[in-house]
Amino acid sequence: MAKKKKEVPIIGITVSKEEDFSGWYTELITKAELADIRYNIKGFVVYREWATITIRRMYRKTEDLLDKKDHLPLTMPSLIPESNFLLEAEHVKGFAPEVFWVTEAGSSGKLTERLALRPTSETALYKMYSMWIRSYKDLPFKRYLSCQVWRYEGKMTRPFFRGREFHWIESHNVFATMEDAMKQVKEDMESTYQILRDECCIPIIFFQRPEWDKFAGAVHTYAADALMGSGKVLQLPSTHLLGQKFSKAFNVKFIDTDGEEKYGYQTCYGPSQSRNYGAMIAYLGDDNGLVLPFDLAPVQIVIIPIIFKGKEKIVLDKVKEIYDLFKDKYVIKIDDSDESVGNKFYTWELKGVPIRIEIGPRDIEKQQVIVVKRHDGKRFEIKEENLIERIDEIAQNYTKEIKEKSLTDFESQVELVYEKDAAIKAIDNGKIVCCGFCSIDMEALKCAEIVEKEIGGEVRGKRVDEEKHEFATCLICGKPAGCTVYIAKSY
Amino acid sequence: MAKKKKEVPIIGITVSKEEDFSGWYTELITKAELADIRYNIKGFVVYREWATITIRRMYRKTEDLLDKKDHLPLTMPSLIPESNFLLEAEHVKGFAPEVFWVTEAGSSGKLTERLALRPTSETALYKMYSMWIRSYKDLPFKRYLSCQVWRYEGKMTRPFFRGREFHWIESHNVFATMEDAMKQVKEDMESTYQILRDECCIPIIFFQRPEWDKFAGAVHTYAADALMGSGKVLQLPSTHLLGQKFSKAFNVKFIDTDGEEKYGYQTCYGPSQSRNYGAMIAYLGDDNGLVLPFDLAPVQIVIIPIIFKGKEKIVLDKVKEIYDLFKDKYVIKIDDSDESVGNKFYTWELKGVPIRIEIGPRDIEKQQVIVVKRHDGKRFEIKEENLIERIDEIAQNYTKEIKEKSLTDFESQVELVYEKDAAIKAIDNGKIVCCGFCSIDMEALKCAEIVEKEIGGEVRGKRVDEEKHEFATCLICGKPAGCTVYIAKSY
Repeated sequence: MAKKKKEVPIIGITVSKEEDFSGWYTELITKAELADIRYNIKGFVVYREWATITIRRMYRKTEDLLDKKDHLPLTMPSLIPESNFLLEAEHVKGFAPEVFWVTEAGSSGKLTERLALRPTSETALYKMYSMWIRSYKDLPFKRYLSCQVWRYEGKMTRPFFRGREFHWIESHNVFATMEDAMKQVKEDMESTYQILRDECCIPIIFFQRPEWDKFAGAVHTYAADALMGSGKVLQLPSTHLLGQKFSKAFNVKFIDTDGEEKYGYQTCYGPSQSRNYGAMIAYLGDDNGLVLPFDLAPVQIVIIPIIFKGKEKIVLDKVKEIYDLFKDKYVIKIDDSDESVGNKFYTWELKGVPIRIEIGPRDIEKQQVIVVKRHDGKRFEIKEENLIERIDEIAQNYTKEIKEKSLTDFESQVELVYEKDAAIKAIDNGKIVCCGFCSIDMEALKCAEIVEKEIGGEVRGKRVDEEKHEFATCLICGKPAGCTVYIAKSY
Repeated sequence: MAKKKKEVPIIGITVSKEEDFSGWYTELITKAELADIRYNIKGFVVYREWATITIRRMYRKTEDLLDKKDHLPLTMPSLIPESNFLLEAEHVKGFAPEVFWVTEAGSSGKLTERLALRPTSETALYKMYSMWIRSYKDLPFKRYLSCQVWRYEGKMTRPFFRGREFHWIESHNVFATMEDAMKQVKEDMESTYQILRDECCIPIIFFQRPEWDKFAGAVHTYAADALMGSGKVLQLPSTHLLGQKFSKAFNVKFIDTDGEEKYGYQTCYGPSQSRNYGAMIAYLGDDNGLVLPFDLAPVQIVIIPIIFKGKEKIVLDKVKEIYDLFKDKYVIKIDDSDESVGNKFYTWELKGVPIRIEIGPRDIEKQQVIVVKRHDGKRFEIKEENLIERIDEIAQNYTKEIKEKSLTDFESQVELVYEKDAAIKAIDNGKIVCCGFCSIDMEALKCAEIVEKEIGGEVRGKRVDEEKHEFATCLICGKPAGCTVYIAKSY
């Protein structure tokens, strides 16, 4: 590694991901030109071309998945009147510290009411729902928005992970019963697996969040934590069982089959496309740069001509011939710039292009090309006559191979812990702690505060999939354990 | 027509498009559930499901077209610091009256600098361009944003046509020479024809706008006017030759092949997806509701079972069988709700579903189905054995047929006019006036003001495609004519 780094100080990444994750990530997004942090508002960044193309594909995949599951898209205004905002008390309390306010417009000056840049859309949308939903026939009512939201974040921002403007999909649903609402929460978790695990190759696990860490206004919050391989977790999409809290505040009612008027049961779900992207590049990337699933790579195949004097035409003709074989099937690019061959290799590795094809005069003599896979660096000499078949095979298996590598056993990162000191040590060693705990209700907040202060991690909650471990006592107060929780540092 | 209206007062449209365009449009967007104007901020509306699906398809088509023409997507923050905004003087002057300002955030209160909700992105983007562009090798630099913008409009708003928040694509490009920039302007006009004429079936014509009606900061503005068939035109996408005005203000420079540092030549282009949608539904719609091009219809085929007592199963089985024939190829829906058959017909006509298939017991006996085309109401009995072939044929020809009907000759709406009185009469009669004019430079502004005041129309500018007509004198002042212009009322 060190040798390679010295060879390519300008193009390549110089920081080791394992030794300095933050430094590595910053270099990755800068050198691969994914985000530009020089935009002159704190916490706001530009997403550059390479990131925007992939994020757009992620949006389209998520939208298509939601469409298939009978959600319909809507477009809401970005601004929310302050008076809407005040209708659900817990929600206001939770979001008020994070709201950007529009107060002036044009030359006419002050507006009569402050307008919030939406930090999330419940308070805009549910006023409309109360007008649109009339009867049980309108239910289930499943809608989503593809949009951006703004939050005046106090926490440190990091491109894609956390910004003051981010891009997500928010899905908002109304049902006739609590059971139907809970089924939706389960469907949302399944959708998250379909996108994050299957498409993005990120290992996640769903936790029911403790009472003190819920979405403002929710009955329960279920959030996916991604294992970032650095002993820290990152919260990815969460889905919230809202019950009737908002429907009562916003008057979302329906006439049921029995002729009675009832409040709907609601859920909401917010897969952040920009954060999912950040998690993906952080998790899959290596010391050579990006690694991307085949479908999500802006360029899937790059052809690099190896030019020798006097042989230019024969090589470039062959390059064009090979290009034509694949141009209708894959996103393919010829790099015929005047950079050195070495620099081209490093550049496209940095950018995470899955397949590199090299073609030089000697290959042409041998009627072969060289093919290199980005994610594992494997190199093949492939006869021209087999090329279409072999490239199709590599393309088809590429994402599967990444997934197999990346979906390591969650349990191997987890340490079962019975005492506070052991927990401190485990967290220090980059482990995720599994332990007994009083409960995840408000009464356990005191124990949770001690966890944060003395152990240096956060209680992530109760696993949603089955819990294999049982503990007798709470790690902190020693009283009988009400549940098993996981403790980890988080981004 | 009148008869039908009386039959379906609740579902159908009751206002005639020809007699009262505004009333018709409002009823259309309300009854077809395209927009909800009850959102509680003036000038902001909700785009409902049916509109959002089509607008999303229009976005994807426009993005794919730009990608093919070597533009790359970017994502920019929505907020622009006031200090950026002040850098190009004409631009500030033009946009300042329309800006929404964010001045407060969270509990910390006042921000140190006002932040504009972008009314357009030049002043955010070109600061980045000055950092990204270094050499002639970086040119042409062609980028675009898919985003929304906000403008504190003084003019009357109308859903999709004009709102205080609207959704567009803005493309921003930098070239080494003025010639290359002008080529881009031409490419943008061609792209506009490809989307608006070919996909949306709207007749448009490009005008070079008069000096007093340019984009703030542009050298020249070229804008498409759509003929709305109501004697009024609507401005659709415009493309702007910016020259070096912004590159000098924002320091967008490059080292040319001769080693010298030069300012880039810029263009920008802003196809508004929401306004294009409004123009399309307004232009193509009729007194039964929406008419949509086949590709852009959220549902392309609807099957309506004609149920008779005792024959339910046989009909519903056949409906399912026919549905399965097409479900992988088209967006198809079965309407098995408990509405009356008549109401179902009206509903799906209102929604503009291109093909309706009716299946009843008698059709099943005859091994046929009834097929009705929305745009011309033509009705066919089609034998089951020919159904796939015939539906494919209808689907393939559907948009072509609309286009043939809609792309009537522009010239037939135009009246050649030599005197002011004749112009007043022509505008009153819903015509577009073609006449001689001093010029479209600032010196002619006085004449243009008289046009607006006394004739009641606006000078739209000089046609970009070849002008067939020549006039000796200016319609207003009688001095020798410098050019031929068109005068029309506009939305």
